Amino acid sequence: MTRMDDILENVAIDAWAKAFSRAPMQANAPHESDAELIELQAAPEHYLAITIDTVAEEILTGLYLEPYTMGWVTVMASLSDLAAVGADPLGVLVSVSAPPGNDGEFVEGAARGMEDACRSVGVFILGGDSNATPVVSLTGCAVGIVPRTEAITRRGLRPGDAVFLTGRAGSGNAFGLVRLGELRGELFPEEDYRPMARIAAGRALRGVATACMDTSDGVLTTLDQLARLNGHGFEIDCDWTSILSDDALRVCERAGAPPWMMLAGPHGEFELAFTVPASSAETLADEPGGWDPPPVRLGTVVEHPAITLRLPSREGIDVDMAPLRNLLETTDGDLGRYLREFRALGRSWGLE
Amino acid sequence: MTRMDDILENVAIDAWAKAFSRAPMQANAPHESDAELIELQAAPEHYLAITIDTVAEEILTGLYLEPYTMGWVTVMASLSDLAAVGADPLGVLVSVSAPPGNDGEFVEGAARGMEDACRSVGVFILGGDSNATPVVSLTGCAVGIVPRTEAITRRGLRPGDAVFLTGRAGSGNAFGLVRLGELRGELFPEEDYRPMARIAAGRALRGVATACMDTSDGVLTTLDQLARLNGHGFEIDCDWTSILSDDALRVCERAGAPPWMMLAGPHGEFELAFTVPASSAETLADEPGGWDPPPVRLGTVVEHPAITLRLPSREGIDVDMAPLRNLLETTDGDLGRYLREFRALGRSWGLE
Repeated sequence: MTRMDDILENVAIDAWAKAFSRAPMQANAPHESDAELIELQAAPEHYLAITIDTVAEEILTGLYLEPYTMGWVTVMASLSDLAAVGADPLGVLVSVSAPPGNDGEFVEGAARGMEDACRSVGVFILGGDSNATPVVSLTGCAVGIVPRTEAITRRGLRPGDAVFLTGRAGSGNAFGLVRLGELRGELFPEEDYRPMARIAAGRALRGVATACMDTSDGVLTTLDQLARLNGHGFEIDCDWTSILSDDALRVCERAGAPPWMMLAGPHGEFELAFTVPASSAETLADEPGGWDPPPVRLGTVVEHPAITLRLPSREGIDVDMAPLRNLLETTDGDLGRYLREFRALGRSWGLE
Repeated sequence: MTRMDDILENVAIDAWAKAFSRAPMQANAPHESDAELIELQAAPEHYLAITIDTVAEEILTGLYLEPYTMGWVTVMASLSDLAAVGADPLGVLVSVSAPPGNDGEFVEGAARGMEDACRSVGVFILGGDSNATPVVSLTGCAVGIVPRTEAITRRGLRPGDAVFLTGRAGSGNAFGLVRLGELRGELFPEEDYRPMARIAAGRALRGVATACMDTSDGVLTTLDQLARLNGHGFEIDCDWTSILSDDALRVCERAGAPPWMMLAGPHGEFELAFTVPASSAETLADEPGGWDPPPVRLGTVVEHPAITLRLPSREGIDVDMAPLRNLLETTDGDLGRYLREFRALGRSWGLE
């Protein structure tokens, strides 16, 4: 499972990247960091950190119905990429594409979601663009600054490092299952889905984390990508009540969804998955001083490039994320088939 | 004609902008510059210049059919906004939304267009995002750096200033008329439509131009917006052969399109319209040293906030751009009606 190009999304990114000349002032290669890291002649001690992210599929599939949520997530998704490299945000630009007409309500809701998301982490909208298109699509571009010697990338973790999350995860997949699956909507109202970019935590991880990536595509996808990039693996301690958010635990308990799906699904939140040397791990776990929420210990980096889930029963389950990560493509966007094959993959791993 | 909010696009931008708190480190207000100008604590002598621009309507209407053109224009549109503030580009990020499947050909073409556009002005693609959507939509985000004391905005022109273009204009509208109108396609093949962002000219205008804005929405729309922002007007010397590009002149001559439409239409190119004090104007006109193409004198800034076209006959025609700028909205996107009402507006001004 060590090959980056077993994952169709990585292959698709490479198809674009290979067409582009490499920028000599860019510190990161493709895949290696959540945001691009660019040398600034005018500020030689810093990198500019910059990222672009479009929210369209989540709107097309009906995952988000409220313009407020669309705006909120667009801003948080791009800020989360800055958090993962440890950057101080300078601000966010947005480009809004939406059908013409009935603009008032949509603009009011989406703009308020963007503004509230920004202000909740002390950031400002800097500007944007708007276009008339048949379907709604929102793009955020977040830009920030990070000291060169302390920028965090996805590469650098070592066997023995501890792996953490900046907070309990699973709310993204819990919300997705409720909205798109057969579960009752009242289990997770849309106004409760307000994932936060972990800007302060990312800053605190400068010079501490050996690798970092946000969980926007789900926790296990994030770990799988880190494993492929670094050629090592993870042993994850599946203590569900300490790992999963209250939202995710409620959906598991009241709707009978298995806990592993909260980590394995593709609709994440914006926690950071990060690794630190074992020596720093104790400090983090014992003195999470100032971290809100407190960091959550997920497990340990291991030599062998695989992901092993250590279940509460102490049974170890090796999960092969490639077929699951490729499932949206291989099921041609048929969500019913996607959910059935997702569960079948879990059973093939020995999970239920 | 001095009111910004006579223009529906300005009203739409204000509806967004009023929802957002003003960023304290931002030097420009909404509408006042082609790119956002952001203070950088790490580089106190400079502004970060940043802009986002989505190309979707031009693809939906069939104006661009080749993925290469879509990629090229996406990159140039955002770089042009950097040029207009006098910035040195750091690079471009792109977000690509396109239907899934038949990816190979689209990706290859669009990526090559982006790469070629970047490399033609010495810039690099830094990264991006891709999404599966039913319609093609490409977003570019260009970022650069400009010395604080020399950043150029849309505000600051004074009566008596000379107004120039960085090169002969009209190719955007000529291409649009050929592609969407009744004219013969061979008059302007798509592969000949490769507008250039005027990065070097923008840099040369630092500390020289009193105001600047790119012609991406057409020359007269640009002048109209500058007039509204500054509360002054323009007298334009309509010496068509010195103002219009060869492409635009050919379409006028061989297809019978009136020259004023090449300036008045909404599909511009990426020349810069800029003003300089009268004293600098002679230097620019006499010693365009190093400018390629040479700058083109358009006319003069006048006190009265109106646009007067001084025709080759020396007749003066006052044009009211508001109904024309609002025409895409008021004709509900019906292109046939748009073209008819466009010509009717020209006749009402006394132009044919």
